[in-house]
Amino acid sequence: MGGDHAPHEIVAGAVAYARQSGHTVVLVGREDLVRAELARHDTSGLDLPVVHAPETIQMDEKPAMAARRKKDNSMAVGMRLVRQGEADAFCTMGHTGGALTAGHMVFRRIPGVHRAVLTTPFPCVTGFFILGDIGANPDCRPEWLAQWGQMLSIYARVRLQVAEPRVALLSNGEEEGKGTELTRAAEPLLKEALGGRYIGVVEPKEMIAGAADVVVTDGFTGNVVIKLAEAVASFFLQTMREEIMARPLAKIGAALARPAFRATAARLDDREYGAALLLGLNGLVTVGHGRSKQDRVVAALRNTAHLVAGRMLDRLHDEITRTVRLSHAGGGDHEHEL
Amino acid sequence: MGGDHAPHEIVAGAVAYARQSGHTVVLVGREDLVRAELARHDTSGLDLPVVHAPETIQMDEKPAMAARRKKDNSMAVGMRLVRQGEADAFCTMGHTGGALTAGHMVFRRIPGVHRAVLTTPFPCVTGFFILGDIGANPDCRPEWLAQWGQMLSIYARVRLQVAEPRVALLSNGEEEGKGTELTRAAEPLLKEALGGRYIGVVEPKEMIAGAADVVVTDGFTGNVVIKLAEAVASFFLQTMREEIMARPLAKIGAALARPAFRATAARLDDREYGAALLLGLNGLVTVGHGRSKQDRVVAALRNTAHLVAGRMLDRLHDEITRTVRLSHAGGGDHEHEL
Repeated sequence: MGGDHAPHEIVAGAVAYARQSGHTVVLVGREDLVRAELARHDTSGLDLPVVHAPETIQMDEKPAMAARRKKDNSMAVGMRLVRQGEADAFCTMGHTGGALTAGHMVFRRIPGVHRAVLTTPFPCVTGFFILGDIGANPDCRPEWLAQWGQMLSIYARVRLQVAEPRVALLSNGEEEGKGTELTRAAEPLLKEALGGRYIGVVEPKEMIAGAADVVVTDGFTGNVVIKLAEAVASFFLQTMREEIMARPLAKIGAALARPAFRATAARLDDREYGAALLLGLNGLVTVGHGRSKQDRVVAALRNTAHLVAGRMLDRLHDEITRTVRLSHAGGGDHEHEL
Repeated sequence: MGGDHAPHEIVAGAVAYARQSGHTVVLVGREDLVRAELARHDTSGLDLPVVHAPETIQMDEKPAMAARRKKDNSMAVGMRLVRQGEADAFCTMGHTGGALTAGHMVFRRIPGVHRAVLTTPFPCVTGFFILGDIGANPDCRPEWLAQWGQMLSIYARVRLQVAEPRVALLSNGEEEGKGTELTRAAEPLLKEALGGRYIGVVEPKEMIAGAADVVVTDGFTGNVVIKLAEAVASFFLQTMREEIMARPLAKIGAALARPAFRATAARLDDREYGAALLLGLNGLVTVGHGRSKQDRVVAALRNTAHLVAGRMLDRLHDEITRTVRLSHAGGGDHEHEL
């Protein structure tokens, strides 16, 4: 029921993904609406059970309040299926704030996790890096950032297939007077938690150049980063389109160059990275873009299934438990094992 | 002596600007080096006095320490000329941190100003908006942000020729749970200081769409914004170039579309906005990009002269003094007058 194009595009994406993968996709929402959408597709041979949820969190509602008031909203119902072992992960194109609140209510945090972190792969010159927090925690404490460095490393291993992820802290420079109280306090903690895999602070330029596999930041800055990158790219494209359309010869040229433009867009498009992950709860929750149409829904489901196959949650649970246990035992340089 | 291409490109820019404007450009630095560069140009009829400064702040030095230790660094010597009334403004392509420290040491803050703010015009869909702080104050207090809203409004009037600038606060959304403690505390203060000209928070997308004439943020976020925008635009261009070069037909098309590409680059280029302004001191200090070559130096000098002609500093001084005086007198809704 979530996102700008629900349930039409969500159901279409679920059907397409079920066809590609052979996986079961449980559709949660207003049963009548979902079944009406399903009826528009050929679903023969597909496993697409529908679970009714009488309520939805609207994009214009205050998410935390709505998630608390509407106990049987579609997100909470979907997450409870995961908690009960009837599904492996929950994926939504709905309200991020609603997913955060419902996620915390239904799953609770993994013991030892300070705060769940919202994270996404982000495109850079060398491919992708893992960026978090991207909006779950606008105000942060330094020890949260350090722990996210560990948690996001595990994600980078599963998602980017990097054995020893290089972790960096986003800042505005290394020099004296740069950074904030938060980043300066987080630096030694990241060093302690990650040892040689912590490569120090990166500026946006280095981050986009691909200097790190994991970039840690507070949820305010991280959210500004993903939204600004999208806005700047759109602005760039729009400006170029205007300038091309104003010139007849350039229009012909642009037509010839179109395959190159398309390839550029594909490399920078967030479609391929599909969904953000809420990491640190006792359940896998992914949140796709609210504007998602069918192809993005498919990508989001594919990425989510990839995390399930990679035993993401078990690995996270093991690592966190081990770190916390060792930490409580005062054990030596355990942090370097992560 | 500042920036990556000093003194060669700096002197070339100064000569070109003096020729265009008829203004006097005082060159401050190692006299032998500066005179050697000047000798390479036709300077007949131009007023380009050289003032010797024996020391320079290097880009790899800790700026605050270097500015304190080297009393006669070229930035401090140049600023002292302004303080003594021998020049109207100081412009550098050198180290921003060094300029901040030297600026505070030589000029001190205008009485009533909480903190000087570093600001720049920033390109958006509708032209430009004024963004600050972009790096002078990574950790901020809410009342600083509110005062910057007032100060940057005056800058917007002079620089953008907007009579009633719309002021916004950069945030990651308006909804519950969005923003930080800082932005939530700054909101009512901005409203109080600016009345109806405060239009609320903007997300990056709205900011780039041109929703506000002035966007206020902390110096950490602001610095990340300008650096990320530059990095994303470069990444975009580089990716497009690669995809075009990989396709023979696209190469021909791109050649035909080149004027459109050039026009796009010109609209997004920071060359035109030239220099950042350090606002709130008893003297005008502008800081251009460290990578500036001749044309950017000319733009930086042109913008600086524009601020002098607009009596920027006098207007700021008047407004700040009036606000502070009225505020001390407990006077009504004086804030709305700004």
